[in-house]
Order: sequence, then C-alpha cells, then structure tokens
Amino acid sequence: MTDAPVLLPEGAELPDGLLAAFWEYERALMANDLPALDALFAPGPDTLRGDAGGVLLGHDAISAFRKGRGGSPQRTILAVHVRPLGKDTALVVAVTAPLSGGRGQQTQLWQRDAAGWLVHAAHVSLPAPAITSTVWRTVGTPLVAPTGSGPLDGQTVAVKDLFALEGHAVGGGVPAYLAEQGPSARHAAAVRALLGAGAAVQGIAQTDEFAYSIAGRNPHYGTPPNPAVVGGIPGGSSSGPASAVAMGQASIGLATDTGGSIRVPASYQGLWGLRTTHGAVDPDGLLALAPSFDTVGWLTREPRVLRAAAAASLDGARQLPLSPRFAIAPAVVGRASPRVREAFGAAMEVFESSGLLTDLAEVELGDVDELFETFRTIQGAEAWETHGDWIDAHPGALGADIAARFAWASQLDPATVAAARVRRAAARTHIETALDGRILLLPSASSTAPSTTADAVQIEATRAATLRLTAIAGLAGFPALSAPVLSVAGDPVGLCLVGPRHSDLALIGVGELFAAAMR
Amino acid sequence: MTDAPVLLPEGAELPDGLLAAFWEYERALMANDLPALDALFAPGPDTLRGDAGGVLLGHDAISAFRKGRGGSPQRTILAVHVRPLGKDTALVVAVTAPLSGGRGQQTQLWQRDAAGWLVHAAHVSLPAPAITSTVWRTVGTPLVAPTGSGPLDGQTVAVKDLFALEGHAVGGGVPAYLAEQGPSARHAAAVRALLGAGAAVQGIAQTDEFAYSIAGRNPHYGTPPNPAVVGGIPGGSSSGPASAVAMGQASIGLATDTGGSIRVPASYQGLWGLRTTHGAVDPDGLLALAPSFDTVGWLTREPRVLRAAAAASLDGARQLPLSPRFAIAPAVVGRASPRVREAFGAAMEVFESSGLLTDLAEVELGDVDELFETFRTIQGAEAWETHGDWIDAHPGALGADIAARFAWASQLDPATVAAARVRRAAARTHIETALDGRILLLPSASSTAPSTTADAVQIEATRAATLRLTAIAGLAGFPALSAPVLSVAGDPVGLCLVGPRHSDLALIGVGELFAAAMR
Repeated sequence: MTDAPVLLPEGAELPDGLLAAFWEYERALMANDLPALDALFAPGPDTLRGDAGGVLLGHDAISAFRKGRGGSPQRTILAVHVRPLGKDTALVVAVTAPLSGGRGQQTQLWQRDAAGWLVHAAHVSLPAPAITSTVWRTVGTPLVAPTGSGPLDGQTVAVKDLFALEGHAVGGGVPAYLAEQGPSARHAAAVRALLGAGAAVQGIAQTDEFAYSIAGRNPHYGTPPNPAVVGGIPGGSSSGPASAVAMGQASIGLATDTGGSIRVPASYQGLWGLRTTHGAVDPDGLLALAPSFDTVGWLTREPRVLRAAAAASLDGARQLPLSPRFAIAPAVVGRASPRVREAFGAAMEVFESSGLLTDLAEVELGDVDELFETFRTIQGAEAWETHGDWIDAHPGALGADIAARFAWASQLDPATVAAARVRRAAARTHIETALDGRILLLPSASSTAPSTTADAVQIEATRAATLRLTAIAGLAGFPALSAPVLSVAGDPVGLCLVGPRHSDLALIGVGELFAAAMR
Repeated sequence: MTDAPVLLPEGAELPDGLLAAFWEYERALMANDLPALDALFAPGPDTLRGDAGGVLLGHDAISAFRKGRGGSPQRTILAVHVRPLGKDTALVVAVTAPLSGGRGQQTQLWQRDAAGWLVHAAHVSLPAPAITSTVWRTVGTPLVAPTGSGPLDGQTVAVKDLFALEGHAVGGGVPAYLAEQGPSARHAAAVRALLGAGAAVQGIAQTDEFAYSIAGRNPHYGTPPNPAVVGGIPGGSSSGPASAVAMGQASIGLATDTGGSIRVPASYQGLWGLRTTHGAVDPDGLLALAPSFDTVGWLTREPRVLRAAAAASLDGARQLPLSPRFAIAPAVVGRASPRVREAFGAAMEVFESSGLLTDLAEVELGDVDELFETFRTIQGAEAWETHGDWIDAHPGALGADIAARFAWASQLDPATVAAARVRRAAARTHIETALDGRILLLPSASSTAPSTTADAVQIEATRAATLRLTAIAGLAGFPALSAPVLSVAGDPVGLCLVGPRHSDLALIGVGELFAAAMR
C-alpha cells in the first residue's frame, strides 16, 4: 500500500510527517476505523468533503456521513502527488485503483497545527457504475428509438417501471413480480405519444413498490439520490424518473400520480411536475394502483419540455384556458411545516406585489383530515383490488412498509369503503363549487426532502402531512402542477397549482409566470 | 453567473483579486476561450488536472486536453467555498450545476505570483450519464439473470454486441445493421455457458464495426475510455467489453478474437485476455467476421475469474496439459516498438532468473510479412463473404476506415485468396512443427495504447506492426493468453503466451506464474 510513488515538484521538500498522516488516513479508511478518520479530519464547521453525492460542510456532517455508509470501497493507491504550500500546508492528490476496477482520484488539503496534520478539505471521485441501479432498471443508447419527429426531438425519457415497453416486462418496483412477467407486446399509450413526437426512451426507471408510497425508498433497489438535497430522500413513488431527470440522465420522466407520486418528488428535487386531469391521458399499458385516482404525468427540468410532453400526450381539443383567478385554502396550507408555510407566505407576497394575485380568494374545502381519510380508504380498497391476489400468493415479496400498507388495505370493510365513496362524491362537488374555476395555490409537500437517515416516525409524520396537501387534487380529479419556486434554507419546495379539469396545459403557463416573479 | 454565494470560514478574509480570477476562469471556460484558460493555469510540468478520465500532469498536457475536447459543458455555479491559505494561496471549491442536470464539483488550488492568480491544481467532477454509450449499448440490473449457480456466482458479464441475447437484437457496432435486426430467439452458446455457471449479464457492450479493427474507435458510438492510460485508445474490436471490465462496470468481458480483438485491448488496458483454440467454444449465436479465424474468449481483471469463465465454457475433456517448454521468435518480437522490445527483454531476464525459462528455444516461424499478408487476405475474403451483401445494400452505413477495409476486401481476386489458403496450410504445419508443443512468448501488441489524438498514419503503423504479432495464433488456430505483465513508462503491455491447441486452461496457469515472477 505504501509503495506508491510520491511525486513532488523538482526542488520541493516533503513536509515532515505529512506522508505518515496520509498513510494513516488510508489505513483508517480501508479499515473503516471511524474514530481515526474523525480524528484526522479538522474539527469545526468549515471542513469540506465532496463527492458525486454532493458537498458536505463541517466535521459533524462528514462524520455522520461516514457512519451511515458502512465503509469505503477497498482500493490501492497508484500515485501520490504532493504540492507543499509552506511548512504546515500541502495539497495531496492521490490516484486510486479500486479493487473493483477503474480509477479514482482523491484531492486533500492537509494543514498542520498542534494536533498534527489534519485534512481540511477533500474531494473524492470514484469510478461510475455501469448503471445507477437505484434509479434505473434498464438503460439503452437509447433503449427505444423515436417513432416520429416533432417537438420532442432530442428529448430522452425515463419511463417509470409501470408502463409497458414492447419487448420488456413491467416490474412495478417488485423483483418477484418482474420475474413472472413476460415481455409486453406493445408500448403503453403514454409511451407511444412521446415516441411519436420525437423523444427516445433512455430506459426503465425505478418506482416504489407498486407505486404505493411517496418516499422513494425501494427496499430491493435502494434509494435514488436527490441531487438537489445532499443526503435527502428523492420522493416517490416516481423516484427513478425524478432522480434521472434531476441528475441529467434523462430530460423527461414519464410517471404516474395517484396521491402525490409526481408532485412530491418534483417538490423534493426542484423539478417541474404535472399530474394531469384524471382520465385525460389514456392509461392503456399502465400497471394500475388505484384506477379512480391514477393519472399519467411528467417530470422535467425545464417548463418548455414539460409543455411539449404534455401537448404531445393530451387531447388538445379538450384542453381549456384559465383565467388568472386564484384561491388559497388556509386549513390545507396549515398542514405544511412552519418553514414551508413561511416560504409559501413570502412567495405569496412576491406574487401579490408582482400583480399576479389581483383576484385571490380564501376558500374552505372541507375537513382536511376527513378528506385525507376518504382518499386513503378508497385508494387502499382499489390498491388491494388491483394487487391483493398477487400479494396473497407471494408472501414476503414486499418490503415491510408497503406490505403493512397493503395489509391495512386488505382489512377495509365494504361498508367503510362504500361510505368513503359517498363522501368522495360530496367532496368533489364541494371542492369544485368552492374553487369555482379558480387555481388553488399551495405547497406541493409539507416539507423539504427528509434525510435518508430520518427515522420511521419522522418520515411517517411528513408523509401524513404531505398527503393532506396532495389529496385535494386526487379527490377532485383535477390536474396539479408542481413548479420549483419555493425553497427553505436552499432546499427546494414546489409551488402547487391545482386547476379545473382539462386546464393542464394552461396551468404550465401560469406556473411559469409565478416562477418568473420569483427570479 | 457571479451571484453565487461565496462562503468563507468565520473571520477569514478573501485574498485580494482571487474572486476576480475565479470568475474570469469561469467566463473563459464557458466561452471555451483556450488562450485565457491556458493563461490562468500555472505553466510548467507540475500543474495538475484530474477528472473521471484520469490525472493530467503539466500545463502542456492540460492544454492539449482542452484543445481536444471542444469545450466544457455549460453550467452555473451554485456556491463558492473559499479556504484562504495565506495571502497568496487559496483553495476554492465550487458546487456546479450543469445546464444538462445534476451537480458537479470543482476544487482548485490558486496561487498568486507576479503573473497574478493562477490555478496550480484542479479536480473536476461532472454528473455521470445514464449509460456510458461508448462502452455499452444496453445495461440492466442485471440485463439477464443467471440460469444456474456455480463458480461464476456474483460475476457480471459485458457481452460484445456480436452474441445473441434472447429478446435483444445483435447490432455488431453498426447502427444501420442493428435497426434491421429483430430480437434473438435464444442466447448464444457462449452466453448460456456463463449464465449456467452463475454469472449475470450486465449488458451489451460496444464493438468496432463488425469487429473488423483492433483500435476500438467506433465512429457511431465513440471511443471507450482506457482507464489504464489517460487519453489512450482502448484497443479493439472488443473495446466495450474490455473498457467495461477495466472500469469496474463488469467483471467478465465476453468477446471475440479474429486477429487480436481480445489480446490488443487486454494489452492496452492491463487486463487478462484469452483467445481460445479455434473451434473450442461453440460459435452458435455469434455474428461472424471471418469464421476460419473467429474465436470466442474473455477479458477479466483477475486470472481466477478468467479461469472460471474459460472452465465453464470449454469442454474439459478436450483440454490438454502443458509442459514448461518455451520459445521466442526474434523475427516476430522484432516488429514491436523499441520500448516494448526492451520491456519484453527485461521481463525475459526476470523470468530466466526466476527459473521459469529452463527450456527456452529460439524459433523461426516464417516470413513475418508474408504470414501477415496470408492472414489478412483470407480474413478479408471471409469478412466480405460474411458482410459484403449487406454492405453493398447499405452504402454509407460504415465509417470511412472500416468501409475502406471492406472495399479492399471486396476487390480480392479468387486466385489471390486461393493462393493464400495454400500458404496458410503450409504455415500452420510449419508453425506447429517449429513450436513442437512449446509456448511461444511475445508482446501482445507492438506498443502501448496510442493516444486518441494520434494521427491516422501513426495508428495505421501501430496496427500493421501489432497484427504481425497477433496473426501467428490466428493462422495456427492456437489459443493465446494476454497477461498484464509488461509496462512501458507506466502504461501496460500484455505478455502473450501462444500455446498448442486445447492448452487454453493450462495457459492461464502458466501466465499466472509469469505474473507472479514480475511482482
């Protein structure tokens, strides 16, 4: 390990003790000796460590990251370039050879004080894997070529693993389910629409198990990264399409939204996301979750790409214009976290002063908890109707969280479900009447992306609050746009615009006005 | 652009002029203003720049790299962390947001002298693409699951795009050809052997067009990286499998060798590579090039994995042991470059002093140019027989180099080919007699990997010399192992061991002895 060549500029002298510290760090890294690694990184809030996952700031954040990762990949050091910067400072650039192949680079700024030589900044590069398996199931160059040419020429699509692709099986985020599926005979309708407009399918992207979650944590394939929030969960269930787009590995995520599965990852990752009017995009070739809520939609980095994807997929003759009339529902917004409410409130003031909110009404949409309960009861009943037989026949196929959710759904008694359906009919009428064609403004999620290390209680609290925000559009069958307009301490939160049925395309235009006002 | 937050440790002072230099560098980078970029990097041999492609040393190498890449991806800067290290030195860590999505990091060491602030070291990370399209055509998690369990459990295979995979088309490195192929009905025999022994198929890897090259430069899919030689070509035609294995994106490259297509990329990238005895592995499901020379083989990082892949694929009953009797053919070795000859000679001395070469004979295998001419005439005739009709029907489908090679092949007159076949029969007898069961030792290639920026004349000279080394095994139908044993100035060169027919497995064991002697 210590026989790698040490390369110094001609005439430069190796600072005393530096190499010993460097090799001690390497030993500790390979042994995952956390106390030794912590001791070799400078204490305090200014120590930096960056890799493909982002830049961590401060000794404590770096230490927590090390605890969480369970060891660094084993490697040898091929060369050590030292650039002395005075007696007590040096930059050390090491070329690394991971035992699993490829080459890496580690750049460290070392400084010596009374405690000895310590790392004050580090930048680590590892070789990339063949495929980011948390994000993708299959990727091609492209996987499916466009069938036409048009406004989506040059765009690449990450297809959520719920949509049929000719020649490929649908996996639904569940390996045991995937193993039993044969190749689809033809592309889903939503895929055909994008291919015909010039887009290529880059690959099949991961989803939460059967799309029955908004977290983006698949126990079989892992948790996709969230490039907008270092260490944050990606949001789900369209986690793969969202992360693929946020990472620049695709320009369009083709996804679904039943109870927030597009809006939540869009919010957590700073993307544009559109849940379409229920029924406006043909679900042919889509693996359902809860058909009376399931909708098709897209995630993009740029609103013009979202508009082009939506225009290629929606029936233009049914699309309706929008008037600039807005509403807020304080009881709904009140379920967001204090910091998100604050960010939302501040944005509303900006919109107001930009003249966007000349017609803004406060509305009351019904008891928020009851609306959510109505939503989740019907969703659960339909989800069990869709997947119950398969789940019963495959015990142990699902991770604990989603298995528990389905188990709860399997216990719903018919009378409870029937009562929820009656309440939903009333709620739809009430929401439609209360909004009266206005665009409802609210945060897309109750918080920024929780940390991947958050405990189950925190995640569940966030989920319960967020679903109370997202259930409104689901119950009403309304389209909802999440625009990357708000932020809390640098982390994104979406501004959600819920419009009347078939205002999908018009909503994107309105969202762009709000985004422009915040610039 | 210049409104990104600048973050300093509490109480630290921003060195005068540093930020102006930082932003001027950013402006020059975005504008691809090469003179300005060159001026902002410190002159001399000690300036460092590293990215996923490796570490470049010296102002000139960095400048040449910049000229070759044609501009850096456009980006914005999200945050600038400055760590002053005295009045005239600072580390600057920038978090970047490429316009194409994802996040990057740029770490720079700036120092001020009379010329002002200059970058002395830089480490750049860009977000990874969904798929390294120079290396892969399609990748999965895995793409094909194992069908059995055995010595290849846990291994992942990069399948050269010549082998049939059920449900996938064979592309042969030619997009126009791929577009006309339907999915294969079943896996190629060589794929089935690996799947049955426990390996999974990671994906379909790129090849030179119709495998008719040893360079590894596909005009449609680009040139795969060579992680062992910064800026070096990967070698071909098994370029994708070789680079996938060298990069750690697969552990086995399933490949073919007609005139060096496994041995050359193994040599250039420091891998183990085995060309098998002609006919020893069933070519069922393989897109042929020149059937009387085509062989199946593998590329790996570790010899034990190579041995396991070979053992799973070869008929053990036909395999023969080897005696430690060796030969060198000075007229063949003489075609290698002076530096490779020198490395080969030095290694031979080590082997000698290690007691490995107690029985070493000098042999004469025939006129080297004539042997090569015999090889390339028959190869060309067969290649045209295989692909001529398709190429005639698809003008413009091939890049200029390979198109010219096929055009030459199409002009071979039957009498010339018949004469070559007569010469081949004589050559086979002569080589077999001269070697008399000995293992021929020679360099796997005439040089280390040429630079991607080498001109066509240099590449052609290297190719002509290397083919004179590799043609011997091709003509004789002998197995040939390339072991990563030699090096020239840090760049790998393979030691090639050519054994008698059906000594494939035994050759790997002998190769390991030579590798051990060089450690």
